Amino acid sequence: MSQYQAPLNDICFNLFDVWQLDKYWQQQPQLADLIEPDTAKAILEEAAKICEQQIAPFVSKADTTGAQLIGGKVVLPEHYHTAYQSLSEGGWTGLSGDTEYGGMGMPKALSMMVDEMLCSADIAFSLYPGLTAGACVALLQHADDETKALYLPKMYSGEWSGTMCLTEAHAGSDLGIMRTSAKPASDGSYRISGSKIFITAGEHGLTSNIVHLVLAKLPDAPAGSRGISLFLVPKYLLDASGEPAERNAVTVGSIEHKMGINGSATCVLNFDEATGYLIGEPHRGLACMFTMMNYERLSMGSQGLGAAERAYQNALSYAKERLQGRTNEKDANKAEPIIGHADVRRMLLNIKAMNEAGRTFATWVASLLDRAKYDNCQISAQRANLLTPITKAFMTDQGFDACVTAQQVFGGHGYIKEWGMEQLVRDVRIAQIYEGTNGIQAADFMLRKVASDQGSVLFSLLTDIKQELSGAELAEAEVLPLYIDELATVSRALLATDFRAQGAQACDYLAAVSYVLYGYMWYKNLLAVKTADCSDIFRQSKQHTAAYFFQRILPKAKGLFALLSQDTAILDTMAPEHF
Amino acid sequence: MSQYQAPLNDICFNLFDVWQLDKYWQQQPQLADLIEPDTAKAILEEAAKICEQQIAPFVSKADTTGAQLIGGKVVLPEHYHTAYQSLSEGGWTGLSGDTEYGGMGMPKALSMMVDEMLCSADIAFSLYPGLTAGACVALLQHADDETKALYLPKMYSGEWSGTMCLTEAHAGSDLGIMRTSAKPASDGSYRISGSKIFITAGEHGLTSNIVHLVLAKLPDAPAGSRGISLFLVPKYLLDASGEPAERNAVTVGSIEHKMGINGSATCVLNFDEATGYLIGEPHRGLACMFTMMNYERLSMGSQGLGAAERAYQNALSYAKERLQGRTNEKDANKAEPIIGHADVRRMLLNIKAMNEAGRTFATWVASLLDRAKYDNCQISAQRANLLTPITKAFMTDQGFDACVTAQQVFGGHGYIKEWGMEQLVRDVRIAQIYEGTNGIQAADFMLRKVASDQGSVLFSLLTDIKQELSGAELAEAEVLPLYIDELATVSRALLATDFRAQGAQACDYLAAVSYVLYGYMWYKNLLAVKTADCSDIFRQSKQHTAAYFFQRILPKAKGLFALLSQDTAILDTMAPEHF
Repeated sequence: MSQYQAPLNDICFNLFDVWQLDKYWQQQPQLADLIEPDTAKAILEEAAKICEQQIAPFVSKADTTGAQLIGGKVVLPEHYHTAYQSLSEGGWTGLSGDTEYGGMGMPKALSMMVDEMLCSADIAFSLYPGLTAGACVALLQHADDETKALYLPKMYSGEWSGTMCLTEAHAGSDLGIMRTSAKPASDGSYRISGSKIFITAGEHGLTSNIVHLVLAKLPDAPAGSRGISLFLVPKYLLDASGEPAERNAVTVGSIEHKMGINGSATCVLNFDEATGYLIGEPHRGLACMFTMMNYERLSMGSQGLGAAERAYQNALSYAKERLQGRTNEKDANKAEPIIGHADVRRMLLNIKAMNEAGRTFATWVASLLDRAKYDNCQISAQRANLLTPITKAFMTDQGFDACVTAQQVFGGHGYIKEWGMEQLVRDVRIAQIYEGTNGIQAADFMLRKVASDQGSVLFSLLTDIKQELSGAELAEAEVLPLYIDELATVSRALLATDFRAQGAQACDYLAAVSYVLYGYMWYKNLLAVKTADCSDIFRQSKQHTAAYFFQRILPKAKGLFALLSQDTAILDTMAPEHF
Repeated sequence: MSQYQAPLNDICFNLFDVWQLDKYWQQQPQLADLIEPDTAKAILEEAAKICEQQIAPFVSKADTTGAQLIGGKVVLPEHYHTAYQSLSEGGWTGLSGDTEYGGMGMPKALSMMVDEMLCSADIAFSLYPGLTAGACVALLQHADDETKALYLPKMYSGEWSGTMCLTEAHAGSDLGIMRTSAKPASDGSYRISGSKIFITAGEHGLTSNIVHLVLAKLPDAPAGSRGISLFLVPKYLLDASGEPAERNAVTVGSIEHKMGINGSATCVLNFDEATGYLIGEPHRGLACMFTMMNYERLSMGSQGLGAAERAYQNALSYAKERLQGRTNEKDANKAEPIIGHADVRRMLLNIKAMNEAGRTFATWVASLLDRAKYDNCQISAQRANLLTPITKAFMTDQGFDACVTAQQVFGGHGYIKEWGMEQLVRDVRIAQIYEGTNGIQAADFMLRKVASDQGSVLFSLLTDIKQELSGAELAEAEVLPLYIDELATVSRALLATDFRAQGAQACDYLAAVSYVLYGYMWYKNLLAVKTADCSDIFRQSKQHTAAYFFQRILPKAKGLFALLSQDTAILDTMAPEHF
């Protein structure tokens, strides 16, 4: 595997040229003091160093060693401890944390770029700080001030970490049927009992305490998902001074043996009358948890992109070095680098064009969240909400495809462990599954994000994009308005169908919308690179890759449009015995 | 993982109803005596038993144990020995072997169905008999009578096995630059020296001898691929009575650690003046090897289909059992089988529709090979030749996608080793890579199978299909002629472009042709099921699945047509530094 190099050039290009976030940050009273000019760059460069030097080189070792359960304790790969310490000491674990509780208060657009680098370095490792950051978001929004003051500073500082405990063996996508119970105790706390599975970072020795956010049902809970409450269940209960003291009744039952992300301790956690504290209102736990879930869903996008970026770097380096076949060479005993072959170029460009659009997309969604937060901008909030399932599902589907394609560039060597490509495929595969499978994301997108308001948020976005394009003079992007029109037509037709048909079309619909929006991302790249202060090679690369996207990738949307205009009744005609 | 059940119903439907091969076999003098009515069914049932009972249940154990190199010896999972013995004793290792040398002389169409079952049971295991069968094909066609008499009976009987030794560390797709040398010895044999990698079944203890077919260069070899000769290099040299005696100078250097098919011993083999015997003409080794390669390429199709079939069975069983969410149920605490969800049905039908078309396709290609062999039918030979890269590339791409989709049906459990789905994904992934990557297959298809004769074999096939369709009254398939026309138009346009553009379009073109031919396969299924002696459920299932294919899968070809009509110059505009 080649040495991972964080794509700082393209990250800065996205932040500062495409979306001009430096200017935006300077206009925000809450941000202007925090991010002086060049602060952002320095943050990115330092994060890159940790990822490149302390995590990325050892990803194969993390895979081989894995997280192990030894005598009831979870033992992680050794370098995870030193890397986690570096992150904590540098303040990285509180990068996007609230400044009132000791966080660095950086905008999401910046922290999402750091996420990408961490995921390129090692997805399994990235989950430890990632889950903690997500738990902090949920606490910040839903916990009372006392709880926040007790927990957030230690979590931002990296001393303690966090988890989200949702899934039970019989209740995954369908949380409403969960059985974990919470009984009120006389002191105002609760006794939590039940067994949770698939708990990422559920147990480990990286931090001196672990703050579990647990979904459970109160005795008087209404049936289904409206009867779920959220509890904070620390591994160690805090003493009067707020320090970890007595061990709480939560234990790790086992850890899962998985396809990949072996460095991540995926735990079965058993709660046996464990002490927990209610977060937010009773029975409103799912809403509270979704704050965290939405955060995690964006991180999934970073996982897809991060893995794909590293896969691309490896494949590119291999394609430039591996000598095989010839295109110009006349001597039959000599071979040329395989990057000369049209099909290898096709594979590389497919990855590159999707990765770069993905990075622009991730920055866009994150910046919309920032505008929602700092400006209280409703349109931005709605659009971020609309685009979240795309970030999760499309970016992870593309990330997986990219890793598989990059593995293919290696030929037989791609299948051999020592080259690292097969690990990328195994590791990134989970991102399509957890935090709500991509099928669930598609249903969420189609039914809750589009159909529920008759597409108004989507149509308003498409109208704005068309408006923006109408003034543009970018020949490469001239086909884009036609695709937007076709997408709008398909969308209207889909909105006229019923719930069942929309569910059947959801996955293909999410992909169709995504391809068109990635077209918009390439338009934004083209526009920005015209005036950016960058090298000729960077500019030409963007222009060629954009052309490739519009000519050789965007047409895939046509196949999806064709599918979406077809009836879906046949899906219901199949009785179970016909399968 | 559910218990694997060989899909004997659909296999027999394909052999006897769709392609009516029982009638064909009875008409062939060479076959009529070998396959009495019901012989074929009995053969399939017995093969199914071995696969279902002796191999499939232990596939996870084979993955965990793997092939290990211990003290210079390759140690395989224990049950491989008993299963291999069962295959040998039942004559399965010589199923398609020539009767003159003790083979059972069964047609390819039948042995390919057995291949599929073996691959469903365990792809890694299937490689041991598979490579042997391939080596026998090459020997039968190119070796002299004495060599055939010495080796083939023992290989058909399963006492000895075979390999193909092509790849070197620096020479994979580009065999012309290989360095392994062959020096003539005074006794008419040769001394082979060099190192080969990725040698499947290169060393093991299943058989008392291993017959390596090795590509090497003679001292006077012309440069490149026209200077490669084929040699037979046995692990043990034979004594005067034809029994294995002196150890030959071929040793295993190491075995690879791979993403999957861990039960397969993928060896580095070192030849150190090993004794070898020339097979065929000097410098014509690549042509000889292609006899074997083409055989193996069909087997790759079986790997894709076999894995996909098992993945489907597992996913279907899970979808019927897993309770999650509700479609009709009103009680929010109760959940229904996930097969009720539109998106789960979509995933299952995507797999089922492609698998069944794939099985019909595999039977078709095999039967064309049989017609070429038994009737010396040139058109059949040309068509089998045309369809071979599709069998290899499209069937393995689809097989991989099917396994990934089936894994997705399992949600989080799909990522956990104990459910077996992730192993299917890891195992089948290799089929897209070895025996010529799917990119190489696509180039072969586009350039050698289509462009080289200006598409005449393809166009003649398409014309015949359209002719056949013109008399049909199958409403489900009425869109098919339009797709054939569009494919012909796209093909003609592509033939008017140059070598470079064709290379760039090759992968998408192969897929486009494949989708249209799979449409033809569904037409054949529909036609056959009208009159087949089958249950109502089987008939309805075929009809619904065909409708699904035409409505919800075939339109994907439109996206490919759109891509294929785009220019590819941009691929060459990218200089290496732009990537």
